[in-house]
Amino acid sequence: MLREIRQQPDVIEKTIRAESTKLRKLGKFLRDRDVDLIVLAARGSSDNAAIFGRYLLEIACGIPVSLCAPSVYTLYKAKLDLKRALVIGISQSGEGTDVNTVLEQARKYGAFTLGITNSSRSPITKVSDETLLIHAGKERSVAATKTYTGQLLHFYLLANSLTTKAKINLEKLPEYASSALELESEVSEIAARYTFMENCVVVGRGFNYGNSFELALKLMETCYVVAERFSTADFQHGPLAVVERRFPVIHIGPRGAPKRTDLELLRRLKELNADCFSITNDRSIARASSRSVMLPAGISELLSPIPFIIPGQLFAAHLSAAKALDPDAPRSLSKITQTV
Amino acid sequence: MLREIRQQPDVIEKTIRAESTKLRKLGKFLRDRDVDLIVLAARGSSDNAAIFGRYLLEIACGIPVSLCAPSVYTLYKAKLDLKRALVIGISQSGEGTDVNTVLEQARKYGAFTLGITNSSRSPITKVSDETLLIHAGKERSVAATKTYTGQLLHFYLLANSLTTKAKINLEKLPEYASSALELESEVSEIAARYTFMENCVVVGRGFNYGNSFELALKLMETCYVVAERFSTADFQHGPLAVVERRFPVIHIGPRGAPKRTDLELLRRLKELNADCFSITNDRSIARASSRSVMLPAGISELLSPIPFIIPGQLFAAHLSAAKALDPDAPRSLSKITQTV
Repeated sequence: MLREIRQQPDVIEKTIRAESTKLRKLGKFLRDRDVDLIVLAARGSSDNAAIFGRYLLEIACGIPVSLCAPSVYTLYKAKLDLKRALVIGISQSGEGTDVNTVLEQARKYGAFTLGITNSSRSPITKVSDETLLIHAGKERSVAATKTYTGQLLHFYLLANSLTTKAKINLEKLPEYASSALELESEVSEIAARYTFMENCVVVGRGFNYGNSFELALKLMETCYVVAERFSTADFQHGPLAVVERRFPVIHIGPRGAPKRTDLELLRRLKELNADCFSITNDRSIARASSRSVMLPAGISELLSPIPFIIPGQLFAAHLSAAKALDPDAPRSLSKITQTV
Repeated sequence: MLREIRQQPDVIEKTIRAESTKLRKLGKFLRDRDVDLIVLAARGSSDNAAIFGRYLLEIACGIPVSLCAPSVYTLYKAKLDLKRALVIGISQSGEGTDVNTVLEQARKYGAFTLGITNSSRSPITKVSDETLLIHAGKERSVAATKTYTGQLLHFYLLANSLTTKAKINLEKLPEYASSALELESEVSEIAARYTFMENCVVVGRGFNYGNSFELALKLMETCYVVAERFSTADFQHGPLAVVERRFPVIHIGPRGAPKRTDLELLRRLKELNADCFSITNDRSIARASSRSVMLPAGISELLSPIPFIIPGQLFAAHLSAAKALDPDAPRSLSKITQTV
């Protein structure tokens, strides 16, 4: 898992280089098609990447996005009107039966289908009109890391190809990912402090909402921590009641639009004597937290999701080691999960 | 909270009676408008009702549904193309700033807006082109119960008004809700067993996926239990790793489409020696669980969400009492939560 975490700057660079031409053509084709709805279908980590995808595509392209409920297609066999829709399946292995069934059905209902995968000959490529590849090499750890950030990257590339407005400049992403990796020893020291943590809440908002789901999933998979995940806003609609003295909250909060509401939540958590660890690049957020790791201040909120999940991945891997567990072989799980 | 739980059959009957004419007219109007996307905006319990709404509207009406991320409108001020969309805000109090901002913006972007609320003169009625009222009387407990099932009911009424196919027969819903209430003493005995439960996972799928979120939220609000919620499918993509010997899982599982995958999960949980409490009306699901409460076998999966959440509400209220807490005044919360 740690080795694969460290490969991420390379994977980003390779994927941008290899996929750009295909995406430019695809963008022109889809703009001509007048897509007015994007549906994202995924499970597990890929579904967390899809949460980011929904924010990015709605905000950057102005096209409404629906996160698909696969059982609507698989169990309930609903016939949806998808004539003007782009339906995207996201799957590291490309083998998830449910996601592939969604794509197959969506095509029948008139949608253009797109697959985002790390596996160039997998079944998802057969049910997709076009495939976007992550160039990550094989991912051996059960806990997805480099394929997750590869999926995030593909949403940026896709947004750039769909929008008629200014493109997002992705040049610095590999450098930002590298600077996140430099925090490893610091993160490892912090992780040791949480050796006996049994449950926690992970919060993040907007562009980093999907990251809060992803970090919680990593903690469940590799550390067996019961990890809740919420947006900083939703957390105040009920779940805040679970917080008691020394309750651990992990917060992913770059400078940017959510800062004001993030600071409000941090103040409430301090009053409740909660223990808050922030992954941030903002001094006032760091000051309002019990502890923090600081990423470079120059990272914009828009580009924060990839560099900001990396300290989270490192935290999960090192906490797993501190708990004397094996992050690469979580109990009860296998790399490909088949559900319908 | 218990008193309000017990009022639910009455609220259902009253709401059906009072709102049917308005909904018939609205349905005709919306069908003529050729809506090809429905967006649902809500927070907290109302958002859990919206999860049910997405399944119901997609399956019964064939119109794709998107669960809105309010911050896309409030923090990021995205301009979405919503010309052919119906945007529905769901709010018990009608006072949530974020939901109301979504409705206000959506209207500017061309959508028809609809509010579902328990409060006939609240701000949500000003930003909605039409309002659907829950006739629940004032809800005093911070934990929403009768307004939640009132919201579920409105999704049925709306689906019936939008579809050109066979209507869902809702006549028996008050009777089903009453039969669920008859389980109170049984549920109260079971709840006592969980007095020292600190965390758990709630699972449910399809039409009952939103209910799993809602029961988890009730447990967080009124019992301070760290309660995760998953679909039975998603649970196997990673989170299953948290399950250890005697780990409590609460399962909402009627007979119906998810039964096969539910039974698979229950078998895996038994192998892991987990403790599984099922709310069901199916004998084989009951047999595969550690313990269960049985609702009438005649309740179809389609009509199960309202009667099946009621034993969950009762469970939360009695567990709260068993823990010597006050379910009506959760720490750190108030009835109206303002977030943007």
